[in-house]
Amino acid sequence: MAERAHALSTVDGYSGYGAEQGEKKLRAAIAATYYADLGIDETDIFVSDGAKCDISRLQVLFGSKVKIAVQDPSYPAYVDSSVIMGQTDLYQQDVQKYGNIEYMRCSPENGFFPDLSKVPRTDIIFFCSPNNPTGAAASRDQLTQLVKFAKDNGSIIVYDSAYAMYISDDSPKSIFEIPGAKEVALETASFSKYAGFTGVRLGWTVVPKELLFSDGHPVAKDFNRIVCTSFNGASTISQAGGLGCLSPEGLKAMQDVVGFYKENTKIIVDTFESLGFNVYGAKNAPYVWVHFPDRNSWDVFAEILEKANVVTTPGSGFGPGGEGFVRVSAFGHRENIIEAARRLKQLYK
Amino acid sequence: MAERAHALSTVDGYSGYGAEQGEKKLRAAIAATYYADLGIDETDIFVSDGAKCDISRLQVLFGSKVKIAVQDPSYPAYVDSSVIMGQTDLYQQDVQKYGNIEYMRCSPENGFFPDLSKVPRTDIIFFCSPNNPTGAAASRDQLTQLVKFAKDNGSIIVYDSAYAMYISDDSPKSIFEIPGAKEVALETASFSKYAGFTGVRLGWTVVPKELLFSDGHPVAKDFNRIVCTSFNGASTISQAGGLGCLSPEGLKAMQDVVGFYKENTKIIVDTFESLGFNVYGAKNAPYVWVHFPDRNSWDVFAEILEKANVVTTPGSGFGPGGEGFVRVSAFGHRENIIEAARRLKQLYK
Repeated sequence: MAERAHALSTVDGYSGYGAEQGEKKLRAAIAATYYADLGIDETDIFVSDGAKCDISRLQVLFGSKVKIAVQDPSYPAYVDSSVIMGQTDLYQQDVQKYGNIEYMRCSPENGFFPDLSKVPRTDIIFFCSPNNPTGAAASRDQLTQLVKFAKDNGSIIVYDSAYAMYISDDSPKSIFEIPGAKEVALETASFSKYAGFTGVRLGWTVVPKELLFSDGHPVAKDFNRIVCTSFNGASTISQAGGLGCLSPEGLKAMQDVVGFYKENTKIIVDTFESLGFNVYGAKNAPYVWVHFPDRNSWDVFAEILEKANVVTTPGSGFGPGGEGFVRVSAFGHRENIIEAARRLKQLYK
Repeated sequence: MAERAHALSTVDGYSGYGAEQGEKKLRAAIAATYYADLGIDETDIFVSDGAKCDISRLQVLFGSKVKIAVQDPSYPAYVDSSVIMGQTDLYQQDVQKYGNIEYMRCSPENGFFPDLSKVPRTDIIFFCSPNNPTGAAASRDQLTQLVKFAKDNGSIIVYDSAYAMYISDDSPKSIFEIPGAKEVALETASFSKYAGFTGVRLGWTVVPKELLFSDGHPVAKDFNRIVCTSFNGASTISQAGGLGCLSPEGLKAMQDVVGFYKENTKIIVDTFESLGFNVYGAKNAPYVWVHFPDRNSWDVFAEILEKANVVTTPGSGFGPGGEGFVRVSAFGHRENIIEAARRLKQLYK
């Protein structure tokens, strides 16, 4: 990135507006690294300034007249962007849900995968795997069910794979590993959690040519129009960073980063398990989802903050299904994780 | 920017998610550089990845039920984002306009400022000054009329000042130089045309606290929510570039860049005037707006491309009011501008 920044001050290295969809070399590297043999090529890849931004651009694409489904709990951007686009009805205080959104409960009881036989049809299904906050990665069988469910209903899946590199078991790392997924799903992803790029702003969305609206119009064609009108491409300097990440050295560095945080995750899991808590997630994600049965998430959050000076995230912030849980993040310096573990042991011993 | 990129690899220099509204130092520097004495402070500044992106985020803020007005001709992103948000009716081929948009004709006859007594009320008025493509900068008196018009109608002005540094006469460089503007206007701006930052992606939008929706709710509060939900801040590396631009050295460098392109502009103006054309703009903008009376813009564009191998932009691409004009850009290497001038003289001698 430093080299690209310097190059901008030279006649040969200067570049202005790039392709809105991203630099050809980066699109090709993403396709080759993450989607080799999955039938996705570089022209299906739209480089972005992050998955969060693309989620809102996708909502603009879908418009105000659609109904979405979300995992409950899940990353709040899906619901929040739906509210902003005017897709929802009023917030219902009693159930802590917005009207006209289908909340698919994901809990320990159902293995954090919804019972699709009880889920009504929606136009759009946001599905994050590994899930933020629960850390649950859907299995091949579960994702096969999800793809079939979407196909039967004529729904579009927005698959968020921002944590895919954290998967340790044989869960699919892309929805496109599932046969038929290209006709029903698009996938959004990010360098944020692999390369510490949260402030650099770089991600991508895959919109396969095979994905059509019900009138037969390609979704990618309309998304391309939105990317060109409402965005002008990720920073060329950030894109240089993306190319670095996908070099052999960069891939090794990202694997090391992911491995480091997975060690942090293990410290956190061991801490809570030694204290008798049920913990979930962790294996395929940098998040530990800790159960505090019959307690209010915010009370637990406040207790841990005030008594141990450790910051967690109250589970109910991710939807009503997160009540009674807190999310503990593994993104931190090792010495801080160890110190937090020590304090938690003192608090809950 | 190179320093910031390097710093990201150090413990002390690493930064993750920043404030979505931009780094405090950059917001303060923008306020101090461009809005000193105008009653705008750093908390009114939202740093972005460019004016184009902010225009679409503003459209999301306004929603699908508003009617917009645009200068005709003007930068296409206003109309295109309005169409995407569903604000418009169908395209009317006969007049080359979308339904439910008010096109405010700006031509040599009215000094490129619309006769506001004939413009119906709209919810939103997009106003770009200096204008892309005509290069016309509105005078203090004209902008005073515009602010009064918006106030009388309860309209919000989205003022696009992306070319303000190119102003050479005493035209206002910000809408906020007009008394009362903070109650009716927000302003979007960019580093793209001052520092060659088109690929770096950095701009800002000013939303004054005084600007309220008709129900009394502050526009800035809702815009802040959209910035936090649909965006996560400009790249920290790009923001470091913005801080560099606003240092004493950076300001001098930007003035030199602007001065260089203004010299290019003069070469282009002299060329067309020596050939007997009427040219507009140029004085306060990097664009020369050349009149080819009774000719089709695309035919002129094709003629210049095919016979002189010079690329211009057909005026009708900016709206029906651009028919019969081409926009000639001054953004180029000096030797290319001189060569283009030579070929144009040969073509039209």
